[in-house]
Amino acid sequence: MSKGRLEAFSDGVIAILITILVLELKVPRGADWQALRPLLPVFLTYVLSFVYLGIYWNNHHHMLHTADRINGKILWANLHLLFWLSLVPFVTGWMGENHFASVPAAVYGSVMLMAAIAYTILKNAIVAEHGPESKLAAAVGTDLKGKVSVAMYASAIVLAFVNQWFSDILYIFVALMWLVPDRRIESKVAA
Amino acid sequence: MSKGRLEAFSDGVIAILITILVLELKVPRGADWQALRPLLPVFLTYVLSFVYLGIYWNNHHHMLHTADRINGKILWANLHLLFWLSLVPFVTGWMGENHFASVPAAVYGSVMLMAAIAYTILKNAIVAEHGPESKLAAAVGTDLKGKVSVAMYASAIVLAFVNQWFSDILYIFVALMWLVPDRRIESKVAA
Amino acid sequence: MSKGRLEAFSDGVIAILITILVLELKVPRGADWQALRPLLPVFLTYVLSFVYLGIYWNNHHHMLHTADRINGKILWANLHLLFWLSLVPFVTGWMGENHFASVPAAVYGSVMLMAAIAYTILKNAIVAEHGPESKLAAAVGTDLKGKVSVAMYASAIVLAFVNQWFSDILYIFVALMWLVPDRRIESKVAA
Amino acid sequence: MSKGRLEAFSDGVIAILITILVLELKVPRGADWQALRPLLPVFLTYVLSFVYLGIYWNNHHHMLHTADRINGKILWANLHLLFWLSLVPFVTGWMGENHFASVPAAVYGSVMLMAAIAYTILKNAIVAEHGPESKLAAAVGTDLKGKVSVAMYASAIVLAFVNQWFSDILYIFVALMWLVPDRRIESKVAA
Repeated sequence: MSKGRLEAFSDGVIAILITILVLELKVPRGADWQALRPLLPVFLTYVLSFVYLGIYWNNHHHMLHTADRINGKILWANLHLLFWLSLVPFVTGWMGENHFASVPAAVYGSVMLMAAIAYTILKNAIVAEHGPESKLAAAVGTDLKGKVSVAMYASAIVLAFVNQWFSDILYIFVALMWLVPDRRIESKVAA
Repeated sequence: MSKGRLEAFSDGVIAILITILVLELKVPRGADWQALRPLLPVFLTYVLSFVYLGIYWNNHHHMLHTADRINGKILWANLHLLFWLSLVPFVTGWMGENHFASVPAAVYGSVMLMAAIAYTILKNAIVAEHGPESKLAAAVGTDLKGKVSVAMYASAIVLAFVNQWFSDILYIFVALMWLVPDRRIESKVAA
Repeated sequence: MSKGRLEAFSDGVIAILITILVLELKVPRGADWQALRPLLPVFLTYVLSFVYLGIYWNNHHHMLHTADRINGKILWANLHLLFWLSLVPFVTGWMGENHFASVPAAVYGSVMLMAAIAYTILKNAIVAEHGPESKLAAAVGTDLKGKVSVAMYASAIVLAFVNQWFSDILYIFVALMWLVPDRRIESKVAA
Repeated sequence: MSKGRLEAFSDGVIAILITILVLELKVPRGADWQALRPLLPVFLTYVLSFVYLGIYWNNHHHMLHTADRINGKILWANLHLLFWLSLVPFVTGWMGENHFASVPAAVYGSVMLMAAIAYTILKNAIVAEHGPESKLAAAVGTDLKGKVSVAMYASAIVLAFVNQWFSDILYIFVALMWLVPDRRIESKVAA
């Protein structure tokens, strides 16, 4: 089975999600700088979610680039990942409009946690199809970053009820950690 | 005539529909758990429709993968299917916001029924192009699942006026029945 | 220059437009049949515009399928066509919500007229690139249907101010005339 | 690493942005010519932004067409460009609804300035990958137009606070300057 349509469909969904995000930035009534001020937290949450979706697209791109075959399980694991990513605009809008509240920050982290778990399930399904001795399995390795991300999202959910700034800092940290994501796979593939 | 653009266009439309669905999940006013409660039925309807659209994309993918040729009739049968699928966000929003009402549940089922019929028309158009002796015709077989689905949607429309929970259960049952959809075609293609 | 990205971009834009159309169908407040009644004219206009965009995608598909080369002029002629098509959701919403008013019906026709002219410009740019002796030029022929469409749109714009039902009938007639569009090109290509 | 998915993803995002733009054109209440009048500035801003996004897609198309290889840096430079372009619908809506105000005109120019800088960064990343002696580097040349654009956007931001018509004229001038964009690259590639 070809992976072309799976990539195209995933690209389509992620491209639409990353663009629909901006609809949460509602055009303000006024026409001065003052009118932009209440949009600042929404804008910052927008930037964070844009980077997250960019990271997912980027990693998805790399992982599937090394894959040779697709099966029904992988198709559904991929749709499961897209499901959680599809909730990103909703939680971005909610957290952006209630920036100092605990529950939206915790719900944001929960969606990110589920997306990270869904990504791991997808990765395992692809590795299972290609075998533990495959180039892909070697390139993905122990996936330390993935495990650290899951732990950080879980911590952020709990810490949101102490002080939601802790969650924000953890979310930013995870994003920065992934912003240099591909070297490992890239170098293995090159080698 | 190449099938590449037909697949790309269908992928695009289904990807956008599955993403636009989430716009029915409106960001709530409050910032506590209480604010999320009224969204629960909308969310569950969202999950159901997401799975349905995922199933359609998945089956569409498999059916066209086995197809070799496309003609004008197939193009229009495909657009006809996309038309009914394009109404999914509308009926999802309506049923989600009126979860215990009969009419929205019946209208939801009607759109699903029409989409199932449109899928059968598309399938027949593709089989007609490839001939009854083709690999595709053998893989699709008697399409028992498709016939059961149509019967269940029809029942759900009627039963919605008795008690809309019957409809909900039938909708969930059809979704579960299709969640393991591809084995049959996959194994035939492999053989 | 390859035509792949031009097709992909056009497919993307048309797929999004055909899907965004449905956002004009606003989820009604009530939960009974009564609540659906005011949506009927919006729905019928939706069906009309869906068919129009389907026809454009279909014809665009066929025309570019026969094209071998793309140049800068064709790229911009294509964007010009997409510009007028991008106004379809707006005029669909306006005509749908004011179904018995002259001005929205006339504006709908104006956008369709401009799209038809833009399509002709695109066709001429492609024919110019391939030469009047090319397979494409032969397949397109005298384009009688295109000329009839332009005349009908122009009539519909004027007649909207007499009685907008005349415009509606003309719009439906043009759609039906194109619903069997491809035979001519298909047969020439086959031959 | 293949450039196919990068192009597909960029096409997807730009296609969605160019289509989402039209959502700022809200269907008016009335059904006469009078109802359209307040939409005129929104419409004109829409045309301007549509042309800008068309230019970006066009230039992006040409630049990547000449590229042979992609790396992680290019992926992120591309996402950075898409980020600034994703703000175009927001600033278009804001400027369109406040056409005679300075701040929206200046913010519009700022987003355009950032997008132009992001495009330069992307270009430099691609040139760096291919080397200064490459066909691409030769085709791109000194990028005089890019430098003039940046200077004009910067001027437009400042002049918006004198009189926002100056900004409008500069924005239109930059668009016209790019509307004949490709000859240079096209001829170099042909040669």
